[in-house]
Amino acid sequence: MFEAAEIGAKIAKPDYEAALPELRANLINAQFDLAKADFPVLLLLAGDDRVGCNEILNILHEWLDARFLRTSVFGSMNEEEEQQPRFWRLWRALPGRGELGIFAGSWATELIAGKLREQTTDAQFDQYCAHLCGLEKLLAADGALVLKFWIHLPKQELDRRVKKADKRKGRRSWQIGKADRRILEHYDAALPWMRRFLRLTDSGETPWTIVEGSDDRHRNLLVARTLLEQLGKQLAARAVAPAPAAPVRRPKGAQHKTEASVLDGVDLESRLDDEEYQARLAELQGRLHRRVDRARKQGITSVLAFEGWDAAGKGGVIRRITGALDAGEYHLVPIAAPTDEERAHHYLWRFWRRLPRPGEVVIFDRSWYGRVLVERVEGFAPEADWRRAYEEINDFESHLVERGFVLQKFWLHIDREEQLRRFAEREKTPYKKYKITDEDRRNRERWDDYVSALDDMVAHTSTDIAPWQLVPANDKRFARIAVLDAICEALARQLG
Amino acid sequence: MFEAAEIGAKIAKPDYEAALPELRANLINAQFDLAKADFPVLLLLAGDDRVGCNEILNILHEWLDARFLRTSVFGSMNEEEEQQPRFWRLWRALPGRGELGIFAGSWATELIAGKLREQTTDAQFDQYCAHLCGLEKLLAADGALVLKFWIHLPKQELDRRVKKADKRKGRRSWQIGKADRRILEHYDAALPWMRRFLRLTDSGETPWTIVEGSDDRHRNLLVARTLLEQLGKQLAARAVAPAPAAPVRRPKGAQHKTEASVLDGVDLESRLDDEEYQARLAELQGRLHRRVDRARKQGITSVLAFEGWDAAGKGGVIRRITGALDAGEYHLVPIAAPTDEERAHHYLWRFWRRLPRPGEVVIFDRSWYGRVLVERVEGFAPEADWRRAYEEINDFESHLVERGFVLQKFWLHIDREEQLRRFAEREKTPYKKYKITDEDRRNRERWDDYVSALDDMVAHTSTDIAPWQLVPANDKRFARIAVLDAICEALARQLG
Repeated sequence: MFEAAEIGAKIAKPDYEAALPELRANLINAQFDLAKADFPVLLLLAGDDRVGCNEILNILHEWLDARFLRTSVFGSMNEEEEQQPRFWRLWRALPGRGELGIFAGSWATELIAGKLREQTTDAQFDQYCAHLCGLEKLLAADGALVLKFWIHLPKQELDRRVKKADKRKGRRSWQIGKADRRILEHYDAALPWMRRFLRLTDSGETPWTIVEGSDDRHRNLLVARTLLEQLGKQLAARAVAPAPAAPVRRPKGAQHKTEASVLDGVDLESRLDDEEYQARLAELQGRLHRRVDRARKQGITSVLAFEGWDAAGKGGVIRRITGALDAGEYHLVPIAAPTDEERAHHYLWRFWRRLPRPGEVVIFDRSWYGRVLVERVEGFAPEADWRRAYEEINDFESHLVERGFVLQKFWLHIDREEQLRRFAEREKTPYKKYKITDEDRRNRERWDDYVSALDDMVAHTSTDIAPWQLVPANDKRFARIAVLDAICEALARQLG
Repeated sequence: MFEAAEIGAKIAKPDYEAALPELRANLINAQFDLAKADFPVLLLLAGDDRVGCNEILNILHEWLDARFLRTSVFGSMNEEEEQQPRFWRLWRALPGRGELGIFAGSWATELIAGKLREQTTDAQFDQYCAHLCGLEKLLAADGALVLKFWIHLPKQELDRRVKKADKRKGRRSWQIGKADRRILEHYDAALPWMRRFLRLTDSGETPWTIVEGSDDRHRNLLVARTLLEQLGKQLAARAVAPAPAAPVRRPKGAQHKTEASVLDGVDLESRLDDEEYQARLAELQGRLHRRVDRARKQGITSVLAFEGWDAAGKGGVIRRITGALDAGEYHLVPIAAPTDEERAHHYLWRFWRRLPRPGEVVIFDRSWYGRVLVERVEGFAPEADWRRAYEEINDFESHLVERGFVLQKFWLHIDREEQLRRFAEREKTPYKKYKITDEDRRNRERWDDYVSALDDMVAHTSTDIAPWQLVPANDKRFARIAVLDAICEALARQLG
């Protein structure tokens, strides 16, 4: 879920300053429209970037009309709050219809700190998340616009800032404090719990927007533009005011971007020469064979899902896997258009029915992620459906992981030039020609829409229990080895 | 939740036989309309009445066209099923759009049996319920009509049947078997877990219908009519077919009734003579005073909610409570029309903000149940809102109980004649005259609508953690003593 918030997205100062006047005017106007509207806006501000949360809070007070703002900062609970029902203090501070309420505070980080101090069981942690998400959904069902921002600072950036503060001790080092040093110290231990928290509180009605805090300008614009856009949408949907003139330059439904994509972080220069490839392939295929064998005997089931650009080489990767297995050990399930029967069911049904028997391996060539990729981009699924799908998919995957399944999901990434080159090559190779269809060409035109969809997919479904693996595949050899290696490692972890 | 299913509702044989031809024709027609529709129907059949579940299953197969029926009976899980992700077998058996699927089986009773055998922790129990409810909601969000029936047999009726079967051993006693004797044996231990299961899996999108199994004819008609009506509604909403000619004779939204109401079980003949009343009043007020005092010192908070017919005597009851308390110990919160500020928030907000400080008592004269009573009956809240409210209210109350609050909720019940008598009396008593308004008179006309709303309210919100107390109040003295006694007992339980 943090992948897209660790790519060093930046906004140059001149671009930032050019964007501000219009943005600030639009924010104020949207706030006025909201005042007449019949719903409240609740903006939740949380994250591991303590300083960033504070700065955003201040910026929002600067940019918005503070008269119509209700801000509540929740610190540690006092004794009375501890004795009150859970979320009592949140309930009391809720904004009313027409108001914009900002909740900032440490309920998430305190929950996670409690987990690290072993004061909280897993079940209590999960229950807290379920209650919190339940409260947010209850408000959304009542018409509230619930916007949730998690400000995230990659570890090396926090580390850099702490070191920098150490150097200029005494001079302006007040911003980075003891609390941040504590965050840095427990960063690795806290990370899985942050991801679990985000997974369990992410929903179609009240999704998280994960914001990288490394660059102030990127951070500020992303939060403000998301607020502006979602508010504009809700105002339009409620038809109380005309949609404000928010500068919307992106495909429908996508999370707001400041250019950068999580795919930018995939190093497409990764290569393997043929000699090393052949050696590693033989070694990994042998290892895979043995581990799948042991898994079968122990009843450990594996589910492998492959997604990727057209011509990214999914077929070749999959053949290198199946080549190492006995025919009876695995099922290969290519996912094309659903059958009539499949179409008659919930979209997850076709995957549930193809789950393997205990100890088997199933390989999905394309997967349940079609819902949030092709179905979203092509408009086959209405927005409400694909938005809800992130939560449904996370639930689905958690059920598999709970039973001890090995679950691995791969996105094979190539760039547009490489894709074009491969298309051209296929046209020249008679036996590969059938692989290019007009649809492939049309899909290329949708490249940017797919990038948006991919970024959202990774933001919402690359979870603690089932992270996405974005595999550089401009070099087919590198991709095949990377995937085989990942599967072997995952099996080893489960075999113990 | 079982209150309305323990009142011995009956249908006479001639009425039953007169109703059947039309009902069966309508069922078959609705099934044909469904075949052309774009959604599936999933009918879940569960309950403590094992024989009843089987009989309903057979009746449905007799009345419906079995060609378009997909029935799955889930017994104990086999070894493979145990290793698959939770609900794997349910997923695989789901009906497709246009199909009617019936799931019968023991997933609930096995869960509860596991709890009684102490194989399951509370957290695991709750998580199972949350997962199950999540699956049902996921299907509903996808358009499925999910109908859930819990067939309930009151303990004395099961006891009677078991004894009867014992008598005619050897002769047709096959119906009542070992399994039913086991249910009887563990009935009291299982009851709170059944109620917890029902509370945690009851939702606005997928509500339970609790069906009393004592009378076959009542049971069969209630299930079939509910199916027919909900299916008709969904077909109409999806505009695939005209609403079928289902015999709908009841106010919009109410659960299907076969005449009887949970209020019929309230013994309005209950009386106390004045002497006994005075003695008990003095005794109970003293006891209440002492217990509230101890609760205050221990930080135990009390929330008392009063609902009831107009002129049922809520004010008089409340005065007998407050008369026993010091002014600083309690808050009395009369709930009238919401203020502007309250209207600007979620309807539960006004109650959250009035929750007492630790150790205090708050008395709500009318309560959050207005949502599912007056707001429903008067049409102030759209159906989707009040249907969702049952779950929201159960959540709200569970948060209070979780923190150790004493939560008591009372419905003061009088009959129409008594109400009329009291209205007439008020007109004669000058200082009481202001209490009757035109609205009171209009409300009387809505009596039957309120009875429907009350039955649904009790079915969905009289839970294991916060049961409703339906207090006979034709005799004011009896009602006052009953309420004082209940509060004293509840305090005693919490004081330990």
